[in-house]
Amino acid sequence: MNKNIETFIACDSDYATASTAIFGAPFDSTTSFRPGARFACRAIRGESYGIETYSPYQDKDLEDVSVFDGGDLELPFGNAEKALGMIESHTTKLLNDGKLPCMIGGEHLVTCGALRAAFEKHPTLNIIQFDAHADLREDYLGENLSHACVMRRAWELVGNGRIYQFGIRSGEKSEFTWAKEHVETHLFNLDGVDSVVEKLNNTPTYLTIDLDVLDPSIFPGTGTPEAGGVSFSELLTALLKLRGLNIVGMDVTELSPIFDRSDVSTAVAVKLLRELLLLFAK
Amino acid sequence: MNKNIETFIACDSDYATASTAIFGAPFDSTTSFRPGARFACRAIRGESYGIETYSPYQDKDLEDVSVFDGGDLELPFGNAEKALGMIESHTTKLLNDGKLPCMIGGEHLVTCGALRAAFEKHPTLNIIQFDAHADLREDYLGENLSHACVMRRAWELVGNGRIYQFGIRSGEKSEFTWAKEHVETHLFNLDGVDSVVEKLNNTPTYLTIDLDVLDPSIFPGTGTPEAGGVSFSELLTALLKLRGLNIVGMDVTELSPIFDRSDVSTAVAVKLLRELLLLFAK
Amino acid sequence: MNKNIETFIACDSDYATASTAIFGAPFDSTTSFRPGARFACRAIRGESYGIETYSPYQDKDLEDVSVFDGGDLELPFGNAEKALGMIESHTTKLLNDGKLPCMIGGEHLVTCGALRAAFEKHPTLNIIQFDAHADLREDYLGENLSHACVMRRAWELVGNGRIYQFGIRSGEKSEFTWAKEHVETHLFNLDGVDSVVEKLNNTPTYLTIDLDVLDPSIFPGTGTPEAGGVSFSELLTALLKLRGLNIVGMDVTELSPIFDRSDVSTAVAVKLLRELLLLFAK
Amino acid sequence: MNKNIETFIACDSDYATASTAIFGAPFDSTTSFRPGARFACRAIRGESYGIETYSPYQDKDLEDVSVFDGGDLELPFGNAEKALGMIESHTTKLLNDGKLPCMIGGEHLVTCGALRAAFEKHPTLNIIQFDAHADLREDYLGENLSHACVMRRAWELVGNGRIYQFGIRSGEKSEFTWAKEHVETHLFNLDGVDSVVEKLNNTPTYLTIDLDVLDPSIFPGTGTPEAGGVSFSELLTALLKLRGLNIVGMDVTELSPIFDRSDVSTAVAVKLLRELLLLFAK
Amino acid sequence: MNKNIETFIACDSDYATASTAIFGAPFDSTTSFRPGARFACRAIRGESYGIETYSPYQDKDLEDVSVFDGGDLELPFGNAEKALGMIESHTTKLLNDGKLPCMIGGEHLVTCGALRAAFEKHPTLNIIQFDAHADLREDYLGENLSHACVMRRAWELVGNGRIYQFGIRSGEKSEFTWAKEHVETHLFNLDGVDSVVEKLNNTPTYLTIDLDVLDPSIFPGTGTPEAGGVSFSELLTALLKLRGLNIVGMDVTELSPIFDRSDVSTAVAVKLLRELLLLFAK
Amino acid sequence: MNKNIETFIACDSDYATASTAIFGAPFDSTTSFRPGARFACRAIRGESYGIETYSPYQDKDLEDVSVFDGGDLELPFGNAEKALGMIESHTTKLLNDGKLPCMIGGEHLVTCGALRAAFEKHPTLNIIQFDAHADLREDYLGENLSHACVMRRAWELVGNGRIYQFGIRSGEKSEFTWAKEHVETHLFNLDGVDSVVEKLNNTPTYLTIDLDVLDPSIFPGTGTPEAGGVSFSELLTALLKLRGLNIVGMDVTELSPIFDRSDVSTAVAVKLLRELLLLFAK
Repeated sequence: MNKNIETFIACDSDYATASTAIFGAPFDSTTSFRPGARFACRAIRGESYGIETYSPYQDKDLEDVSVFDGGDLELPFGNAEKALGMIESHTTKLLNDGKLPCMIGGEHLVTCGALRAAFEKHPTLNIIQFDAHADLREDYLGENLSHACVMRRAWELVGNGRIYQFGIRSGEKSEFTWAKEHVETHLFNLDGVDSVVEKLNNTPTYLTIDLDVLDPSIFPGTGTPEAGGVSFSELLTALLKLRGLNIVGMDVTELSPIFDRSDVSTAVAVKLLRELLLLFAK
Repeated sequence: MNKNIETFIACDSDYATASTAIFGAPFDSTTSFRPGARFACRAIRGESYGIETYSPYQDKDLEDVSVFDGGDLELPFGNAEKALGMIESHTTKLLNDGKLPCMIGGEHLVTCGALRAAFEKHPTLNIIQFDAHADLREDYLGENLSHACVMRRAWELVGNGRIYQFGIRSGEKSEFTWAKEHVETHLFNLDGVDSVVEKLNNTPTYLTIDLDVLDPSIFPGTGTPEAGGVSFSELLTALLKLRGLNIVGMDVTELSPIFDRSDVSTAVAVKLLRELLLLFAK
Repeated sequence: MNKNIETFIACDSDYATASTAIFGAPFDSTTSFRPGARFACRAIRGESYGIETYSPYQDKDLEDVSVFDGGDLELPFGNAEKALGMIESHTTKLLNDGKLPCMIGGEHLVTCGALRAAFEKHPTLNIIQFDAHADLREDYLGENLSHACVMRRAWELVGNGRIYQFGIRSGEKSEFTWAKEHVETHLFNLDGVDSVVEKLNNTPTYLTIDLDVLDPSIFPGTGTPEAGGVSFSELLTALLKLRGLNIVGMDVTELSPIFDRSDVSTAVAVKLLRELLLLFAK
Repeated sequence: MNKNIETFIACDSDYATASTAIFGAPFDSTTSFRPGARFACRAIRGESYGIETYSPYQDKDLEDVSVFDGGDLELPFGNAEKALGMIESHTTKLLNDGKLPCMIGGEHLVTCGALRAAFEKHPTLNIIQFDAHADLREDYLGENLSHACVMRRAWELVGNGRIYQFGIRSGEKSEFTWAKEHVETHLFNLDGVDSVVEKLNNTPTYLTIDLDVLDPSIFPGTGTPEAGGVSFSELLTALLKLRGLNIVGMDVTELSPIFDRSDVSTAVAVKLLRELLLLFAK
Repeated sequence: MNKNIETFIACDSDYATASTAIFGAPFDSTTSFRPGARFACRAIRGESYGIETYSPYQDKDLEDVSVFDGGDLELPFGNAEKALGMIESHTTKLLNDGKLPCMIGGEHLVTCGALRAAFEKHPTLNIIQFDAHADLREDYLGENLSHACVMRRAWELVGNGRIYQFGIRSGEKSEFTWAKEHVETHLFNLDGVDSVVEKLNNTPTYLTIDLDVLDPSIFPGTGTPEAGGVSFSELLTALLKLRGLNIVGMDVTELSPIFDRSDVSTAVAVKLLRELLLLFAK
Repeated sequence: MNKNIETFIACDSDYATASTAIFGAPFDSTTSFRPGARFACRAIRGESYGIETYSPYQDKDLEDVSVFDGGDLELPFGNAEKALGMIESHTTKLLNDGKLPCMIGGEHLVTCGALRAAFEKHPTLNIIQFDAHADLREDYLGENLSHACVMRRAWELVGNGRIYQFGIRSGEKSEFTWAKEHVETHLFNLDGVDSVVEKLNNTPTYLTIDLDVLDPSIFPGTGTPEAGGVSFSELLTALLKLRGLNIVGMDVTELSPIFDRSDVSTAVAVKLLRELLLLFAK
């Protein structure tokens, strides 16, 4: 008999043959308001058995793609730099082994670790970000490794004009001012995805989804819920437009299941992850 | 003095004179993911005192129709066949007494019992289904009496072309394939209600509403929440279009109040039930 | 060192120099269905540290307006008349000191106290009401000071044609009949705000927001949730249209945080209050 | 067919033949901290189907006593005096019809109405109170009808030496001082029940149980939880000692089910009510 | 890399070498009051990472025993007989392979399947049951496979004088009457464990723990909470007395984590399971 | 008018004249299992208005002691060393100004900052610790600033024989082994307090209470609930024995209110804090 294996539904390929590798990054130590994103990885796996493997949106089935789920990294709470280092080296290994890395956060800061690895591998990397918050602060209460600064750190890697933000509706005034000269920010909704898709074409691109881009009506389980967000259907429609892009890494972050005891937020994350895997895994 | 009587708000007509009879079917033993629909009947009655009896949508008042509420059937947990038999015979009695049966689930499987009675009475029966899930499986883990199979069982009664599904966005691939030749499925939204109404006209029709057709943002309290659903206003608008149809039975199912501690899901179910009664009770 | 001061975020101006004064009215004794609005004031202050002071919708920052937050009135539970008297005299003082009063409820009845003061000061007062419920009953279970009667009491002050209601979708039949001859009621949505803004122009106007005008999907934390409401974006868009009106008092009421343990409802109230202050404070 | 009847489990005797009559008093407008006791009556009936009718503690069964449950009074929120009047006249009717009144609160203030009726009928009335709070204030924020004053109001009826308090562990200093000369207060635990039972013997006695006498570990669902209370077994043991007293009225108050989403508090109240009925109903 | 393995903490031995084998039986279809025990197995594994592997009570560490955790059986909801058959054959295999079976329920009915296997293997089997409920009904609403009947079914296997019940405080009158002649029932507390231990000595014994034997103050997360139970320390003390018995199978059942959102009930179950493994695994 | 001031109930003395100074340390970044202790400070102040200022246990009133409440430190999430530095310097200032520091955590690690200041001021410092966990690890996942290591860090300051632990019931085996030679550990309960009190007498002593020493039945709202703890009454009795000791600093830590939605855990913390202030403030 085998020990108990728990993977995201139908993601039970072996590592060697899988095109895509899921891993969890349960870290939330820099969360500024409500922690709890550390619990997302496990919740997403568990709730994944509440959905079907088949997507009527794409007419595809998870049974037809090969995804490996190796579980979660064991990250040290309270030490952001060390945690990011562990995420970076794990992502690097996946990339070197030819896998598409798919990270489940954790707070948004974890994206920083995966981006370092992806940028090392793909120096022309672009980034598509779905998010309620600009995350462009230089620092937060003196700390420059904070989930409120993650895209500023990303910019330090990739430079001007490489970050495309959608759904942004919150930030300090200075972030919006700074953004105008360094990144491409689409406020409030997801308009503009088409032209970015056309522009990026085959460029290596990292896709990061801070799930709080969704309206809190459908996604209350997050650390800093921000009203006025997009609906599930709007987000799904936008994601489906990304088909064909050269996605070299992706993540979903900032689910904090303890703030949504109906578990709907987790179910939403699960469904989005299924659609992402059907879009980009092979 | 009288013993404590608790009915759905303003549904206090005597059985003899009522046009319509409410009953509860508190059964959830085959629920595949999150049980709790057994608690819906009682919750719906209790929360009904939070709404008005008057509908500004229809400019009608529950005081003006005659509805009897006889409480819940006492169904045996863990024995689906016996439970369905009890529902069938109760529905048969109501139909023979000239009442419009209005069942409050319970999981969606309970519809099976009411449908048997309605089909027996009306051999040309058609079925309108609002639902997130196709519910067309041949069996689920080997069981053919499961809430995931209820419309397949219904099809075995009424045959091809008699079931009209709306809002469907989840199912196995095989269900969607099978559906194409046997039922009329409208994916994702409620488009197409008008033409079905026109087609059915005066044909005896059973209306079954799995409340998870609603988006989980407004209806988190259900066993298998499925993002991307319709809004309350969209569902209400579609239901109002059914006015004039020859509805011979109806139900609302799959409210699981324990998964929505804000009780909004129950309030939604209550408001929909008021509108249904104002539409079809006399 | 100073004692612990807790104000709505960035509303730390001194009373003497502030243009606007926030106060809480934690009263919910007449709530007909689910009490708990008494907890709103404190919850709103606490959750306000989860948002930014800057609004990308208005490109303005709370740091740039001068608002004083003096905390909550200590109101006697179970004695509506005395509570309203205390609210009235507090509002009168604020108006006499040249402040814009901004009250955080409590149940909607508290508006009655503030309106008395505003009407005394501004005899040509008009009222804009965003609400799910008409609140136009003559009495409720024999009580004429009830949250279900608050706008009827308001009408007794200001008279015919001075109350503009938006988003109304619930009430007794008699309320809707009565409304037609005495107030201007916009059903179901917020259409018609433009023409009312044009009409009111510089007339002294009181703005009262019963937060249950919002759909329960985004605002479950309220005493009588009513499905079919407006979205956050729709409400915000409508409020932004009010810019330029002569608002002489305003309130937000009927947040009951205990019914939304995700605290999203509170976050929504917080964001709306920020936008209101940026619109009308100086 | 009969309309839906919901009584406390097995309390389905007709009024004429019943020895005991249950009624609910869903009122909580003067609650000083956390309202919600209005929901207790309905919750207690609903959860009563989770217990057995048989008590192994007393080797008796609810099937063997005759209890009538007539439902709840419809009390006006926000008007304590009117609510107490309605409770008083209902209790008077029950007493005149020879029934033992058994009231389910509501906040503790409702006891005041029942006591007025019991004292009118039995001028030598004594009162046994199980409670965490002395409830002996002259007034609360200027109101003398408040749940914090209920036993002071009771004393105004029955006079010195007629009130026996057990489990008291909270109050203002002045209450404890005043108590020494007017009532018999047993602090912290239930010691002393035996001697009071011996003393009261056949004197007409009203039994009022504020359920917060229980430790919040077993009874979190109450408005003002107070640590350091008695266990369920300790309370039950004390109640069983009261067998043989001449109980002429009784109540259980201050369950606020919304603050205990596990519903254990309600289950505790249900079990205690079963034991009380088995002790004193015939 | 390996697929994600999730076991109870430190129970990561291979099957071949393990002395003890954990498996989950996520079934709750016959639960009479509040379902949800199906979620216990997964919750127990997840929360197990919140405790230490070392027990200061026994001065032993899970690292020092060899336990295999093979995950959960996939049981068909709504078909009790089939589910019990699957549990029986799995338990038989474990016994034949020389493992000590340790089952995590699920509702208490699942014990029936494991007992059939244990009795087949050990015809002189005795049973020790810790439980709030006698579970001795002949049938429940006509069903004889119900969690309220499980020990009656057990008695049909092992016969008179082989079942030892502790902590029993709820049941129908007829159960208690029947019990006197067929089983050894210790009411209300755990007194009498010592003499039973002495008596059973080396006889093959199955240990079944319905966790609702615990007081609901420490274990609210269960389907039928019953006040007046034992404390954690009392239960642990009793279990430690069982050391040295010839335990040939064991289970913990009736955790329903959805009714305890603080997750304390799960933490309690986890700690008890650790102690059980340290007591009986090798 | 004054800005809104919120202090722990009745702790409204000015700094200059106060004997005791409360401050909050909302930090939880190293919490190993369930974060949320950051919310404790604010919750404790808010819920403090649910209790009386008078203690019948000590016959003393908070009105009679002089306590200042200056609110919370603004600590950087994710940087433990910087947070501890800020706590240390704040505590040093309080000590230099002759105040008794009373810190509200946060996770238990915050004690480390206060201890550094207290030890600097009082080189013969002893420490009394009430806790479920030994907290004596050298490091946790490689971090030596973790709430699991706080008493090991404390030992590095004060040395052998200066730390007195009570109620300990969880830890790694190595912690218990190490403890035997370096600290005085009382397992499972609070026995031994008397002799420690006698021994410490007038020695400067710091009192740290990790609230998880309480049984989770009464204190579920904490990060790592550990069954088998002491009751509220046992803890209070033990604390009252400390009267007369030379307490030079104290704290209560590890309340995580989000895990106890009944808010009983917070009410317990509030009551304990009242008793502590009445014991040691002047």
